[in-house]
Amino acid sequence: MNSDSLTLRQFQKHISDKYEATDRARGSAGTFLWFIEEVGELATALHGKDRANLEEEFADVIAWLCTLANINDVDLADAVIRKYLSKDPPQGTK
Amino acid sequence: MNSDSLTLRQFQKHISDKYEATDRARGSAGTFLWFIEEVGELATALHGKDRANLEEEFADVIAWLCTLANINDVDLADAVIRKYLSKDPPQGTK
Repeated sequence: MNSDSLTLRQFQKHISDKYEATDRARGSAGTFLWFIEEVGELATALHGKDRANLEEEFADVIAWLCTLANINDVDLADAVIRKYLSKDPPQGTK
Repeated sequence: MNSDSLTLRQFQKHISDKYEATDRARGSAGTFLWFIEEVGELATALHGKDRANLEEEFADVIAWLCTLANINDVDLADAVIRKYLSKDPPQGTK
């Protein structure tokens, strides 16, 4: 597994394999709270100068977004291809 | 480009190619506001029953997360591999 070959689908599945049982039992509302906690930590990291921490907070936010998608049966790769890589994606700003 | 082959790095680069100039000029704080607006729309969609809208909001959140990463020179694939796919990832809960 390397940074050039890691697919979005693989990563979402990895998060599912490791965490989905716990996450699904918690439900969307409780899981959203965890997601937002990580978003807050990302905001804090954006203010700081700790690059390793900043990278980790980005990783946590995307991991929790995968979790939210998993427990809502959303395939993120399908979703981004449909919205951003189809014939008529948003122009200029998203 | 299909859902099985889309790499996280490709998607982050696509968002960079299309939007980074505008996003970088706006800066992290202003871009974080846009990101949070999309997070709010995701929360709304999680309450609803419109599956297409829910998928779109997930896509928007991950796209804006890519933007935030781009303008902060963070490679998301490197970040998630380091945090979640290394030898010692978080166990049970993230």
